[in-house]
Amino acid sequence: MFQSFSVSSFPEQGPTRLNALRDIMKQRAVDAFIVPLADVHQGEYVSPHDARLAWLTGFTGSAGFCVVTNDHAALFVDGRYTVQARAQAADVFTTVGWPATTCAMWIKDMLAAGPRVAYDPWLHTMDDISTLTRDLPDVDLHPTDNLIDLIWHDQPAAANKPFFVHPLDHAGVSHDHKRMGIADALKGDAAVLAQPDSIAWLLNIRGADIERNPVPQSFAIAHNTGKVDLFALSGKCDPIRDHLGPDVVCHDIDAFTSQIAKLTGSIQLDPKTTPVAIQQICAENGIEIIDAQDPCSLPKSKKNAVEINGAKAAAHRDGVAMVRFLAWVDDTAPKGGLTEIDVVKKLESLRQDTGMLRDISFETICGVGAHAALPHYRVSEASNAPVVPNDLLLVDSGGQYQDGTTDITRTMIVGTPKPDHIKCYTLVLKGVIALSCARFPSRVTGGHLDSLARYPLWSEGLDFDHGTGHGIGSYLCVHEGPQSISGRSTVPLEEGMILSNEPGYYREGDFGIRIENLMVVAPAPDIAGADDRKMMVFDTLTYVPFDRRLIDTTRLNRAELDWINAYHHDTLQRLKGDVEGRTLDWLKAACAPI
Amino acid sequence: MFQSFSVSSFPEQGPTRLNALRDIMKQRAVDAFIVPLADVHQGEYVSPHDARLAWLTGFTGSAGFCVVTNDHAALFVDGRYTVQARAQAADVFTTVGWPATTCAMWIKDMLAAGPRVAYDPWLHTMDDISTLTRDLPDVDLHPTDNLIDLIWHDQPAAANKPFFVHPLDHAGVSHDHKRMGIADALKGDAAVLAQPDSIAWLLNIRGADIERNPVPQSFAIAHNTGKVDLFALSGKCDPIRDHLGPDVVCHDIDAFTSQIAKLTGSIQLDPKTTPVAIQQICAENGIEIIDAQDPCSLPKSKKNAVEINGAKAAAHRDGVAMVRFLAWVDDTAPKGGLTEIDVVKKLESLRQDTGMLRDISFETICGVGAHAALPHYRVSEASNAPVVPNDLLLVDSGGQYQDGTTDITRTMIVGTPKPDHIKCYTLVLKGVIALSCARFPSRVTGGHLDSLARYPLWSEGLDFDHGTGHGIGSYLCVHEGPQSISGRSTVPLEEGMILSNEPGYYREGDFGIRIENLMVVAPAPDIAGADDRKMMVFDTLTYVPFDRRLIDTTRLNRAELDWINAYHHDTLQRLKGDVEGRTLDWLKAACAPI
Repeated sequence: MFQSFSVSSFPEQGPTRLNALRDIMKQRAVDAFIVPLADVHQGEYVSPHDARLAWLTGFTGSAGFCVVTNDHAALFVDGRYTVQARAQAADVFTTVGWPATTCAMWIKDMLAAGPRVAYDPWLHTMDDISTLTRDLPDVDLHPTDNLIDLIWHDQPAAANKPFFVHPLDHAGVSHDHKRMGIADALKGDAAVLAQPDSIAWLLNIRGADIERNPVPQSFAIAHNTGKVDLFALSGKCDPIRDHLGPDVVCHDIDAFTSQIAKLTGSIQLDPKTTPVAIQQICAENGIEIIDAQDPCSLPKSKKNAVEINGAKAAAHRDGVAMVRFLAWVDDTAPKGGLTEIDVVKKLESLRQDTGMLRDISFETICGVGAHAALPHYRVSEASNAPVVPNDLLLVDSGGQYQDGTTDITRTMIVGTPKPDHIKCYTLVLKGVIALSCARFPSRVTGGHLDSLARYPLWSEGLDFDHGTGHGIGSYLCVHEGPQSISGRSTVPLEEGMILSNEPGYYREGDFGIRIENLMVVAPAPDIAGADDRKMMVFDTLTYVPFDRRLIDTTRLNRAELDWINAYHHDTLQRLKGDVEGRTLDWLKAACAPI
Repeated sequence: MFQSFSVSSFPEQGPTRLNALRDIMKQRAVDAFIVPLADVHQGEYVSPHDARLAWLTGFTGSAGFCVVTNDHAALFVDGRYTVQARAQAADVFTTVGWPATTCAMWIKDMLAAGPRVAYDPWLHTMDDISTLTRDLPDVDLHPTDNLIDLIWHDQPAAANKPFFVHPLDHAGVSHDHKRMGIADALKGDAAVLAQPDSIAWLLNIRGADIERNPVPQSFAIAHNTGKVDLFALSGKCDPIRDHLGPDVVCHDIDAFTSQIAKLTGSIQLDPKTTPVAIQQICAENGIEIIDAQDPCSLPKSKKNAVEINGAKAAAHRDGVAMVRFLAWVDDTAPKGGLTEIDVVKKLESLRQDTGMLRDISFETICGVGAHAALPHYRVSEASNAPVVPNDLLLVDSGGQYQDGTTDITRTMIVGTPKPDHIKCYTLVLKGVIALSCARFPSRVTGGHLDSLARYPLWSEGLDFDHGTGHGIGSYLCVHEGPQSISGRSTVPLEEGMILSNEPGYYREGDFGIRIENLMVVAPAPDIAGADDRKMMVFDTLTYVPFDRRLIDTTRLNRAELDWINAYHHDTLQRLKGDVEGRTLDWLKAACAPI
């Protein structure tokens, strides 16, 4: 079982640890210290070694940071986490609503003129510090050792699992070929790669240090010759040396900063993801810095044919598990006695039954009733709720398979739906359909298309407060940029990009709905009467039935009805050979025309 | 008659004038000189005094610029104008496709290292020169007198028509009130206002120097005390002195630069619209510059209740003229003998018949058949085509009334439509309807909504290459920012903003379709079941029938059909009391349910 339901932090230790931090701040003559929830790679997950925020404050949410002064300690969290932060952290920590109050605003209010504010330059990006510098002109921003590491005596060691090869029959393109392509696209003489998933993609390797995301925790320098220097904890690269060949040189991570200092020519850094420490080393050594997006980011997002086929195979395999799961819920839940944790365990076991599951792709979000109204709810032993009749059950989950990463959400009714369940589910589904059917020209971004998924909800005075879709990796991170479908996205959609399509609706304290399929951007098929314009479509990857009990056909137009029936027809054709008995009967009934 | 159909430029003079320019360039030791199509206020139209590009090159399109070196002269135009530029300008001018080739790219190619490139700093914005400086690091960019003015011996004098008051019963809010609001919103101690329409709005005045747009050609300095200094040619302000009162001081335009040089404190400049000359004066005098959007831009765009009522009255009046016009076309065109110019003249005369027309709001775009496929076609004596049967006729036009500026496009069939006329008209209309029906939350921009108008076209492999909608002034410019509906727009839509809704479709050499209504952003009405979220809708201002002969009802869903029928029902109810006889019969038939 990958997922656990316990929460392991020790908030009662908070005051003691805070005092220890303040002691060392005094020794160092520091007026404030910033504790982010980040490791040196700015990934979405951190290993136990890097769980400094939880160690200090007891807060275990997925986003936040703490600023400590001699008199105050502020735990900054966004709207999702204010309740949890107040409940988890001891009273010595004041919960502050971010971004209404920013780090800079709080520091200005709390500290007299000219304070010294310390930070670990490996845990903050160039952009982070550039923003702080702009907003705090009168503050001495002071890079330092990590003060938490100095007082955390039983800090777990940094994860040190060996890297492994991501074989060509899944990667599709050799790392020689990718390295030469990146070399040609560099704007500087070299680029520092700070994102492990970029390195994973470039070198066709994966790692096991971080749960859920098989990223190889490392840095790399990509040269305009096509050669790459790879930096990781000693020994991690041993299993991949043959695979890497002579043009990729493995170094111990300890050699990283000295290698940067020795660089000649210009070096390309991505200010959004590169630790400011690297910028500072370059500046100290007179190395010319070029601000530019991580050169692997865009190529990685455009999946090749082998990766797309892998994503289809993974979605198919995962879909079979999902269908078994949905049939099981329909069979089991009405009898009573199920809890959210039971549901999560069953789903993971069905994915395990595929024999191919490497990990789940994130902690399954499984919520009944009001829990489903929390878009990022994660069930714990403490919160675990029974699956009661006449409530909606929302399950957002995915699997890491070697051929692809999956992510799917289905919302279902146990018992009898209320009219608003049906109305809102249908509106959300109309949004899924509008995006699924979109045909669009070059240069269109996810920011342009986001409204298509919201229009039906908007028309009824409803909306949802998250993006409509995110990019997804190929046996990599379940959230992958640069593309997304959200009002903020300015990245043109290109062929091969995989995106989720997941509008939702959440009524606080009552119910929540989300429907999520994965799609890949593909060339638009020829149609009669079209102009000579290059256009694209979304090919759906996910085929799993929607809950027909929640669809109000009177709210659908003919094209939408036809789309649902075609989707269910295709789902049955694709999956019927892989399920049997009661599950097959369930699938046939679920896929019958509406 | 406001519109004329002659083209008055003298391309045959081009070579002589070019030689004269090169002579003076040599005297001044200048390697290149840039001739933009702009006056000091960067408006969409220039007065004859500022028509330097046309004087030099003979090119009379609405956008372009020329760069002259000793050996070459490049006329830069966008895709709309390449044919016209080649046809109009003499061979000494090479037509260059912009923006594929930028000014900087061309200069780099043409001139050896370290050239001196001169420009008139009053005709280029801060952003213009900042871009050139960035892209031409090795060039000596040299502000100078306008070299054209030195050789253009019969240059018309600068326009000098008196300003006049825009009365409170049309403006809605006094200029005292507006000035205090702007004073509160300033980021600097003062702001230079370089946009005449901002000054018009702020001071409730209008002018008559520029055709089509009743803008008062002037500069102003708005102080954070609420006081304003106004700079214009001597005498123009005489009729408005009483209206302006003691807190607005009129100066001769000759005093403008010396007044800027005397400013103390910080001064706010909009880099997108402010002549770089003003930045240079501030820099020379050590005045702190704050880059910020024109402080009047956003408040001006949010029309108050009086302005919205004015816009509705103007749209109603204009709609009556349009209905008379459409009925006349239907009566007259089938008999044969009509030309595009006849159509333009008739429409303007019907607007004149309202007794309220101050000007047309732009040169009427009236095209038959292939001419309609040119989105910005302007008919001239030379291009004038007969209105032949079985072709589409596109008419895009508007009026300047004291209570509001109008802009409307209708496309109609003369004779019998072809199947593709009907298909494409229906798809365009579906886009109009989708936008018209949109209900959307705060922070949504025109960039988010643009795709709604394109989705039906996209679905058939079609699109159009212009924005979907622009802002519009209140007895001011027909194109007014900052809001728009286009993929590039990042300005949130706010209550009171008036926008056009004008998708189209153009098949080169064959036909063109555009349908345009004006809409105003309004608070969304309450609906049952809505969440507690502030939402907005578009209230349609324009009520004029669509061409029912071009609507394929099988392509419409129930909601779209209902919308068209409701729109036509409302149109008939609003207008039937204002027309009579054959026009009333026509209106009733045009508005019958489909």
